[in-house]
Amino acid sequence: MIRVGVNGYGTIGKRVADAVALQPDMEVVGVAKTKPNFEAHTADQRGYEMYAAIPDRAPLFGDAGVELAGAVDELVAAADIMIDCTPSGIGAENKSLYESYDTPAIFQGGEDATIAEVSFNARANYAAACGTDSVRVVSCNTTGLSRVIAPLQEAYGIEQVRTTLVRRGGDPSQNSRGPINDILPNPISIPSHHGPDVNTIFPDLAIDTLGLKVPATLMHVHALNVTLKSDVTVAHVRQLLEEESRIYVISEGMGIDGAGKLKDFAHDAGRPRGDIWENCVWGESIAISGRDLYFFQAIHQESDVIPENIDAIRAMTESATAAESIELTNRTLGVGITGSPVGVVDTDHSGVEAADD
Amino acid sequence: MIRVGVNGYGTIGKRVADAVALQPDMEVVGVAKTKPNFEAHTADQRGYEMYAAIPDRAPLFGDAGVELAGAVDELVAAADIMIDCTPSGIGAENKSLYESYDTPAIFQGGEDATIAEVSFNARANYAAACGTDSVRVVSCNTTGLSRVIAPLQEAYGIEQVRTTLVRRGGDPSQNSRGPINDILPNPISIPSHHGPDVNTIFPDLAIDTLGLKVPATLMHVHALNVTLKSDVTVAHVRQLLEEESRIYVISEGMGIDGAGKLKDFAHDAGRPRGDIWENCVWGESIAISGRDLYFFQAIHQESDVIPENIDAIRAMTESATAAESIELTNRTLGVGITGSPVGVVDTDHSGVEAADD
Repeated sequence: MIRVGVNGYGTIGKRVADAVALQPDMEVVGVAKTKPNFEAHTADQRGYEMYAAIPDRAPLFGDAGVELAGAVDELVAAADIMIDCTPSGIGAENKSLYESYDTPAIFQGGEDATIAEVSFNARANYAAACGTDSVRVVSCNTTGLSRVIAPLQEAYGIEQVRTTLVRRGGDPSQNSRGPINDILPNPISIPSHHGPDVNTIFPDLAIDTLGLKVPATLMHVHALNVTLKSDVTVAHVRQLLEEESRIYVISEGMGIDGAGKLKDFAHDAGRPRGDIWENCVWGESIAISGRDLYFFQAIHQESDVIPENIDAIRAMTESATAAESIELTNRTLGVGITGSPVGVVDTDHSGVEAADD
Repeated sequence: MIRVGVNGYGTIGKRVADAVALQPDMEVVGVAKTKPNFEAHTADQRGYEMYAAIPDRAPLFGDAGVELAGAVDELVAAADIMIDCTPSGIGAENKSLYESYDTPAIFQGGEDATIAEVSFNARANYAAACGTDSVRVVSCNTTGLSRVIAPLQEAYGIEQVRTTLVRRGGDPSQNSRGPINDILPNPISIPSHHGPDVNTIFPDLAIDTLGLKVPATLMHVHALNVTLKSDVTVAHVRQLLEEESRIYVISEGMGIDGAGKLKDFAHDAGRPRGDIWENCVWGESIAISGRDLYFFQAIHQESDVIPENIDAIRAMTESATAAESIELTNRTLGVGITGSPVGVVDTDHSGVEAADD
């Protein structure tokens, strides 16, 4: 059993902890948190040992009725591997803590690529992380791009990627973020930083990216153009994408015209938190003009990196091959919607199996 | 077993069906739907028999790979009771269908009060629905108001209720609704229709309501003023509300400042679709000035009427007392967050019980 510690129990950390707890080869040693808010109470309820991320604030937890197992350095000492899920920039501050205990660590995509030996996407470069002591799982957007670039490059070769990322302003609970009535070129400088981030996974890829932020909270949407090296058909590209376990090609007729209905679909299927771990590509949008491929995809910023974090643990500990890890992660989490209704994941948490009686 | 049919499988219908399926004394005979969109696929996956709400469109279901059990009139014939969850106004069109088969029916709050023998809220007037053949479960907002009015009236007496309802513009998936950048007095005429709707439950209550719509999708928020007939303290009111099984008083220190975090809390607790069946009253907001009581509450428009629909079934069939039905509905659905973390519902759909191993 790989003993995993999670530092930071917010949007990403709580999902990572739940995903680790579902793995047959891993266990959650504990989670560290800065303050005893509602998420701390739920962690407590779920049976995760709680550690104070800021030791001076430990008394606040007792006052709030949340029992502490210790301070974060004790968690780092006890863990075989730490997953840092703290806000962007804090991971860099924590790096020396992990190193001081010789505890390998996984960082998130908000950190600079230099924080770790390798930037990671399970589909694209699993092997590169094998045996390393520090890995950075790339951001939600870079993860989403990597998952489509890898199969396209393997099947057809890529001359150039040009992508416009229409990004949500904040998560549903981040009510102090904007914009609330604007469309922000962000960053205004072109190309955006997303292209270079994709290059941490595909060093030789020609990619230009443009970023914007809009008043939305549910998902990001990418408008992609990929100039391929081979002639292809829409049907062939569609089949290629449908065969990817972490890409869901939305069928025509499902009546899914945006992120709201995608989230409803995930909720109806009984997914935890309505999470959508897969890239969601609109099948109808796939278009070919010469060697230019175009399509839209939606990316759930809160959850698409979760399976990648799990796979990164197995890569670093060299406990599985890429194919083995991806299959196990997908199966335990329930990743993989196919185009047909048969593939809808139903974890039956609401007990509706009784409907058949 | 009470054989329940659900006509309309959208936001309310799918939740009602899942809730019925969880009841030990009920079963879902089938659900009727107008088109085979993503929700039809999920219903199929959950094992609900599917009926065509518009018989002419039956072929569309076959084309989409969704098997039909028949047309909606066959469902009405087979059911002991129908729950009409169709959009506002369609329920009135369906009334004669239910009557033609002598099938008792429950309608939703979007219909006129005249559609049914009684308008219903389990906490306030369960007995009024006993033995009737038609019931209207009042709207999400009226349900939310009834749940706080009932205990306040019983404990202190009420001289006057004045409420401002700051309403969400649409549900998260309703992306064609507005406003997107405005604050609409809606309806502009004062008082709004909400007060008279509350009077369908409390005929003699003095209540004035003002409605607005804002660019939000997650929940409604009510700003309440209740002039009481007795002198009270903040602590006494708080305790009174905390003792109500369908009111959640948000504790200070939970860090919950709006609907986004409330939804995150529900998601973290593993609730299906992140539903919040309870009124959510901010404990810090409870204030007293003379005999004027003030507080804020958030109402989850997609789900607070679901337990009420279940209780309405038992009232109409006279198969349980109000207390028995409310207790059973709460227990089977997981309704009832208490102020302490102990009360957080964890249906463990993500399997995190493994974290304790």
